[in-house]
Amino acid sequence: MSPATDAPVRARFEAVWRELAVIGDGGAAGYHRFAWTAVDLELREWFAGQAALRGMPCERDRNGNLWAWWGTPGPGAVVTGSHLDSVPGGGAYDGPLGVVSAFLAVDLLRERGVTPSRPIAVVDFADEEGARFGVACVGSRLLTGVLDPGDARALRDADGITLAEAMSAAGADPGAIGRDDEALSRIGAFVELHIEQGRGLVDLGAPVGVAAAIWPHGRWRCTFHGEADHAGTTRLADRRDPMQPFASTVLAARDVAGHLGALATFGKVHVTPNGTNAIPSRVDAWLDARAPDEATVHETVSAITRAAEKAAAGHGVRVEVHPESYTPLVEFGVPLRDRLAATLGGAPVLPTGAGHDAGILSSHAPTAMLFVRNPTGTSHSPAEHAGTGDCVTGVTALADVLEDLTRT
Amino acid sequence: MSPATDAPVRARFEAVWRELAVIGDGGAAGYHRFAWTAVDLELREWFAGQAALRGMPCERDRNGNLWAWWGTPGPGAVVTGSHLDSVPGGGAYDGPLGVVSAFLAVDLLRERGVTPSRPIAVVDFADEEGARFGVACVGSRLLTGVLDPGDARALRDADGITLAEAMSAAGADPGAIGRDDEALSRIGAFVELHIEQGRGLVDLGAPVGVAAAIWPHGRWRCTFHGEADHAGTTRLADRRDPMQPFASTVLAARDVAGHLGALATFGKVHVTPNGTNAIPSRVDAWLDARAPDEATVHETVSAITRAAEKAAAGHGVRVEVHPESYTPLVEFGVPLRDRLAATLGGAPVLPTGAGHDAGILSSHAPTAMLFVRNPTGTSHSPAEHAGTGDCVTGVTALADVLEDLTRT
Repeated sequence: MSPATDAPVRARFEAVWRELAVIGDGGAAGYHRFAWTAVDLELREWFAGQAALRGMPCERDRNGNLWAWWGTPGPGAVVTGSHLDSVPGGGAYDGPLGVVSAFLAVDLLRERGVTPSRPIAVVDFADEEGARFGVACVGSRLLTGVLDPGDARALRDADGITLAEAMSAAGADPGAIGRDDEALSRIGAFVELHIEQGRGLVDLGAPVGVAAAIWPHGRWRCTFHGEADHAGTTRLADRRDPMQPFASTVLAARDVAGHLGALATFGKVHVTPNGTNAIPSRVDAWLDARAPDEATVHETVSAITRAAEKAAAGHGVRVEVHPESYTPLVEFGVPLRDRLAATLGGAPVLPTGAGHDAGILSSHAPTAMLFVRNPTGTSHSPAEHAGTGDCVTGVTALADVLEDLTRT
Repeated sequence: MSPATDAPVRARFEAVWRELAVIGDGGAAGYHRFAWTAVDLELREWFAGQAALRGMPCERDRNGNLWAWWGTPGPGAVVTGSHLDSVPGGGAYDGPLGVVSAFLAVDLLRERGVTPSRPIAVVDFADEEGARFGVACVGSRLLTGVLDPGDARALRDADGITLAEAMSAAGADPGAIGRDDEALSRIGAFVELHIEQGRGLVDLGAPVGVAAAIWPHGRWRCTFHGEADHAGTTRLADRRDPMQPFASTVLAARDVAGHLGALATFGKVHVTPNGTNAIPSRVDAWLDARAPDEATVHETVSAITRAAEKAAAGHGVRVEVHPESYTPLVEFGVPLRDRLAATLGGAPVLPTGAGHDAGILSSHAPTAMLFVRNPTGTSHSPAEHAGTGDCVTGVTALADVLEDLTRT
């Protein structure tokens, strides 16, 4: 593709990006775009506005996912998109790049005079990051029936608000959530474009790549039950301080992961009562564990659990390790993957440790992912970034893929 | 004292205690009574109500402390009382027992027909625990000029609200805070009754004791600056995860304290951004350190700081250790202490690791403390408890002490 044909796509990309970038932007504190908040409703309005600009009818399905249609909604549709929510203090690209690229790919196809033989849908999946209610990919998990609607409704945020209450407050009906065979049956193929969350493409010197697999991964809530007491008057020997075994477990997690070739992270901690001069009664900490294969994930979590139990016992503390979510290994289908790579002139194929809605959908429809190069590899941080040139290349690649998939 | 004379005091204690106990009570989650909140205003109304019942004029000084007077406010007053605020998830007794006992001691003196030769004041010190703004004994520190009014006004709570804003919202004037020589000059002596925060009196088999000293103690904020990144895609070797050196520091703190005969506690932690699948950019953790002497406190904090720096360096993390408050060793004056012990028929004299407003006032007026037995030693917890019989003994002891001190 020549710079001459790039220029209009670049200009459109920059204009659309600017408009979206202000929503939920906390500056140096990063993005805070959580499901069913006022910011989420703004993002949804932005999505509906983009659909309207293109004359694409927009609908919200029973699980809160948004769909904008080019052509009559129906079976065999080629679906593309991603999500608009973020982690706390997240970056601008994780999710939104896929949604913006989807709309701009539609523009490009229309400019090329393409008349798709199958409907095309742009999708925005609800609550992909799980930042507010603790479970990731809620929209796609509900759609596919992987997440029980009753369990979902009962999920609570840090303020004790349930997902059901949050949906109701945002004007959605929590009673209607659950597996949606009608919506599922429309998906002929799903292609999600996403910023890469590592430096695989940097190392390969390629702006765009195709996903091979998503590592199996999950979240485990580790609760250390101790006994609250006064920090200034309780002898060390009399303490049942849950912070001590928690700290041992954090160190053990790193050792175990390093030893087994896995990843293990404690990124979220909640201390009760969290007073400077009070020995905590309880520490809740969330373990994120991932590995190239499922046996290694389970071995990692088992070893960390054993370390937690041993450390807890030494302090008269009780520990519970409770799985909150788990996603098995996702290997994207080889035919679609190879077709994308071929369409893109032999783009590299690479795995990722990050979960995506595409991983959830992959057991229901042919599914693939495109990654756009991330110069620093940084993700889930305000420093997350992709060059505009690479983003434009991503839009063009997505348009090429959609054109190919809707040709027959 | 015979059970016959105990009965009316017990009945009054139970009635007053019941009325106060409902304010800010979170049930199993403990008390949440934070400075300048709606709950604090309810506690202040309760105090004013108790003063009014006894015909004691009540005033709020410039720093938010409440004073109820028996006799004309003026120099040489014998002051007694404590505080009504709590730590997060605190118990019912820490603070309130001293205020309730003060009012009931006044009742008892009046029943005995005592006419004090000096005024008696019951005091409620503002914000003793420092649960909301991070600095303990704010009311007494401002009164005595130990805390700079500008620094105090700028203190922020977890929601970013300053102490100045919180005072204004509660109808107090933050512009008026600062050393109050007029209020100070009235204090002829201060006696604070407090539930013991350990098991010293249990071991001695005594319901009431007299304080010898308060261990030097302080709070240090340890900030670990790392780099936010995706928990699922960032290789272990590429991480700058602040949770790791924080965990090492928690373990080091226990080792150092055990080695030096000190106490060191991390009871409050704040993780940024605190997302399950995000390596934190930052961990803030508060170290509470105490020891029988000042050199040991400083040695403890220095050794923990060195351990934190070493651990941080190993992870590409930067650590800052910032002192937030420090209270030197307080040895209560021997003459007053011995007079109390003698008045109480040879009550035991014992030290404590907990800070109190009495410690702050001790450099401005003869100051003493009475401790009431705590069967489990538990403190800063909903499980904190004193038997009603011992509380009644405490009221009587306080009345005896006040009668003695106001005799001449």
